[in-house]
Amino acid sequence: MSNSAGELYLAEIREQPRALERLVAQRAELAAVSRLLADRAPSIVRLIAHGSSDNAAAYGVYAFGLLSGWTALRDSITLTVYYDAQLDLPSSVVVALSQSGETPDVVEYVVRARQRGAPTIAVTNDPESDLADAADVTFPLAAGEERAVAATKTYLNTLAALALMAAGVSGREREVGDGIRRVAELLDGMLDPIERAVPAIATTFAYVARMFVIGRGIEFATAREIALKLTETCRVAAEPLTATDLAHGPIAALDPLFPVWTIASRDEALPAVVDAAARIREAGATVVASGNASSEVSGAAYELPVPEPPIPLLAPLLSVVPGQIFAGALARAKGLDPDKPVGLSKITRAR
Amino acid sequence: MSNSAGELYLAEIREQPRALERLVAQRAELAAVSRLLADRAPSIVRLIAHGSSDNAAAYGVYAFGLLSGWTALRDSITLTVYYDAQLDLPSSVVVALSQSGETPDVVEYVVRARQRGAPTIAVTNDPESDLADAADVTFPLAAGEERAVAATKTYLNTLAALALMAAGVSGREREVGDGIRRVAELLDGMLDPIERAVPAIATTFAYVARMFVIGRGIEFATAREIALKLTETCRVAAEPLTATDLAHGPIAALDPLFPVWTIASRDEALPAVVDAAARIREAGATVVASGNASSEVSGAAYELPVPEPPIPLLAPLLSVVPGQIFAGALARAKGLDPDKPVGLSKITRAR
Repeated sequence: MSNSAGELYLAEIREQPRALERLVAQRAELAAVSRLLADRAPSIVRLIAHGSSDNAAAYGVYAFGLLSGWTALRDSITLTVYYDAQLDLPSSVVVALSQSGETPDVVEYVVRARQRGAPTIAVTNDPESDLADAADVTFPLAAGEERAVAATKTYLNTLAALALMAAGVSGREREVGDGIRRVAELLDGMLDPIERAVPAIATTFAYVARMFVIGRGIEFATAREIALKLTETCRVAAEPLTATDLAHGPIAALDPLFPVWTIASRDEALPAVVDAAARIREAGATVVASGNASSEVSGAAYELPVPEPPIPLLAPLLSVVPGQIFAGALARAKGLDPDKPVGLSKITRAR
Repeated sequence: MSNSAGELYLAEIREQPRALERLVAQRAELAAVSRLLADRAPSIVRLIAHGSSDNAAAYGVYAFGLLSGWTALRDSITLTVYYDAQLDLPSSVVVALSQSGETPDVVEYVVRARQRGAPTIAVTNDPESDLADAADVTFPLAAGEERAVAATKTYLNTLAALALMAAGVSGREREVGDGIRRVAELLDGMLDPIERAVPAIATTFAYVARMFVIGRGIEFATAREIALKLTETCRVAAEPLTATDLAHGPIAALDPLFPVWTIASRDEALPAVVDAAARIREAGATVVASGNASSEVSGAAYELPVPEPPIPLLAPLLSVVPGQIFAGALARAKGLDPDKPVGLSKITRAR
């Protein structure tokens, strides 16, 4: 492993505050997207994505649900692209998420949905991509070129884009935009302390082969994204679970060699996460507590707190970052290069 | 471990053909549920569940999409029960799935949705349960008492119930009912050969600690359910992935000690699964091929084929069964009792 292993990945994590500010500055682009959404007042927002973008989509379900009272769903791509199901697409709005804008079946979904009369929005880091070309309107991620294979700043900007779009249809774009700018400031202040805290945990976890990552509600997206980072950069079998689904079976697998990363943020779902952490401790597993309410998790072996955002809905923009940084440190502790996971390339063309 | 370890679990797997026949025989109950659905012609079917029932819900998305062209979604319980989001529930129909009928936040969701004017259907193995009490109409699973903690026959009957309900609103209940009866016959014929085939694989896998389970489209539900069975009964960190999501990161984690179970069934999504299996083989991992098109997977170390059902949509009722039986055999090979996973009880009361 070269000394530069993970340099790109870490540089892009550090760039996230600036990337968020660039996104929020795109007022005209947001206004165009908000107009399309508000004009249609759709019965459903169909979120179309794979990988990290699909993790962000799990957040979009809550952003639209809480800010605009709209039903957003992570739609099945297979149902429309492979099985040609005759769903009522025109009464929906399609929001397709892909940092590269080149994911083949996401592009194909948008082509089909537009042909069938559904309004389509592309959220992508490449406004010249096939996806942007296929959609009616594009909201650029404006994250700057992402060179590390494992997505970080495009993930954060996709979360922010979804929050802004959901805010835009309910006249709250200024409040949420200001909130995201404040999140960028908070991020600036937390990166150094987190970077100093993670190597000690990473060293202890160097031989870990499997983990669970637990979140609930708005933080389930964070659990999914941290688990994916651990799997792709550290070759850990990391599974994301809601606090409740853990109790519906997987808790039986825990033992002292099976650590669990918990994301505890201050909102109505917090008690479920705190209860789950207590059950995890009873099973003898090592608990890492993160999130802005990490101190509520009792018996955690390690704590990686983050600040509280001005709006609770924005918590996932902060709570994913310790997981991103930890994955980079754990990859290095395992002798892997987080910039170049085995067998992956930046644009995933697999169907 | 006693000699009787896993007896209950295996007995209930063997009972599945009869359980399916009991379900299909409930014509009046199905007619009542179908009437409620057809009268409302909802914009959305909201599927509410945790654990194995939520895995079945992933199948429900396809059953409603393909048989009736309706949009069904695995709804966020947290959004309504914890965050009190103001979604438009009355234009939906709520279908709540719980074998025990006692899962607290599933019951709570139904209570709230009904108060807000949404029609509600309970699908449960206990027509006297809180869930049945809370809903407008109940479709009983009729699986007979399930005593093993790990669900098997209630899972299969939940799949069949969802297929029947989706068929009922499009006048195809007879065709699908006949199809399920034929599936029961096919199951009768395949149980013995599968039971004879799995112990050799289970012995080889005795020290396996992590696996991926790959399916796509209608078989993603099967991947979820087999992964859950492996996690809860065998303490394996088994993660379900779609064929495409595997390529979006997790494939980097594979090595020769990380086996992958693939479900290959003959439908439009099969090429994606076959391609994924080829990439898995390139990564050096051991492949188990199951499903009715398992012979299409090249380079599989083990093959567990199942028969083709009369209707492609019913394939998941057959393809989950080798996974159920294998999980029982692997648990025994690991010295565990699949009837009594550590830390679980039959009714999960955790929120």
